[in-house]
Amino acid sequence: MTEWFETTETTEEAIMAATYRALRAHGYAGTTISRIGEEFEKSQSLLYYHYDDKDDLLADFLSYLLDRLEADLRATTVTEPRERLEALLDKLAPVDPDVERRQFFQALLEMRAQTPHQPVYREQFERSDALIVDDITATIEAGIEEGVFETVAAEQTAEYIYSTLYGALDRCVTLGQWDSLAQTRRELDRYIETRLLTVEASE
Amino acid sequence: MTEWFETTETTEEAIMAATYRALRAHGYAGTTISRIGEEFEKSQSLLYYHYDDKDDLLADFLSYLLDRLEADLRATTVTEPRERLEALLDKLAPVDPDVERRQFFQALLEMRAQTPHQPVYREQFERSDALIVDDITATIEAGIEEGVFETVAAEQTAEYIYSTLYGALDRCVTLGQWDSLAQTRRELDRYIETRLLTVEASE
Repeated sequence: MTEWFETTETTEEAIMAATYRALRAHGYAGTTISRIGEEFEKSQSLLYYHYDDKDDLLADFLSYLLDRLEADLRATTVTEPRERLEALLDKLAPVDPDVERRQFFQALLEMRAQTPHQPVYREQFERSDALIVDDITATIEAGIEEGVFETVAAEQTAEYIYSTLYGALDRCVTLGQWDSLAQTRRELDRYIETRLLTVEASE
Repeated sequence: MTEWFETTETTEEAIMAATYRALRAHGYAGTTISRIGEEFEKSQSLLYYHYDDKDDLLADFLSYLLDRLEADLRATTVTEPRERLEALLDKLAPVDPDVERRQFFQALLEMRAQTPHQPVYREQFERSDALIVDDITATIEAGIEEGVFETVAAEQTAEYIYSTLYGALDRCVTLGQWDSLAQTRRELDRYIETRLLTVEASE
């Protein structure tokens, strides 16, 4: 995700990049509009012109990330179902993320824990989960169509795969034990082999 | 868990019951020592005598819950590996919890999102994850020993099963979509059948 914020051509991109840096540096609870302003390269008045408060800005930030993820998924050139599924898992839960990315995951997770109290965040995370589950579902359906995946309930399987990945990532972030993500990922790959791949595709 | 707090014989139990009620009513962020005091049946000065601040009290509360879970797991009379595994999954992530329990899971999750900033919580959640993963691992090892489970890497499988369950529960709590827990649980049961149960045990 870091690379998304390397070039900031528009004011919106510059605000989003500053938000990203503030979240990484201060976490969700410690991020304020004023701290985002400190990371902002342009005039701070621009920031206050666009946003009333932190929640407003962070909801927009989540929406921006999701637009990027959506565009990213659409642009994926991998069409072979199994490869596409693996590429998606790698993108969503990289097994050995760098420190910056870990800090960012942590801030996202804190925002997510706020969803029951913050409808503006909740909408965005609902969209995020739906986007990801839909993409996994479509990939599984394509695999069934092509005869490389068994005829499983595609959406149920997608919910399951995403919950596993999400749970592993969440546990790593909250306890800082990144080894368990690799373990879970290995076992998820075995699940895909044994439950999803047809005998012909496994050979 | 509700039933744990129905009888409160000691002062400690009364404090824990008050904490449980305050967390359910106000969530983690809204819970203060004074609000726990409002739920406390005895003199509030007793509360301030025992605890300096909210984090101190909540860390003790987590520790108390874990002691109960540990005693509960030890007291489980089910020894048949597959049944024991299913009973454990039911206990950790009940598919259709009541509103009280949902509110409580929400408060726990918010506390968990604080772990990177709160070492006193982190210790407790580390203990909780280790306790659960160890119990699942021991159950899988017993199943392999008895010939009802395939010879899998027990700890890796346990990490995987717990991550799946935890992720599904977390997603339900944060988005309020409890249907997805039932879907993931059905697929987890299929995983246990196809990847874990030996052919003999499946028949």
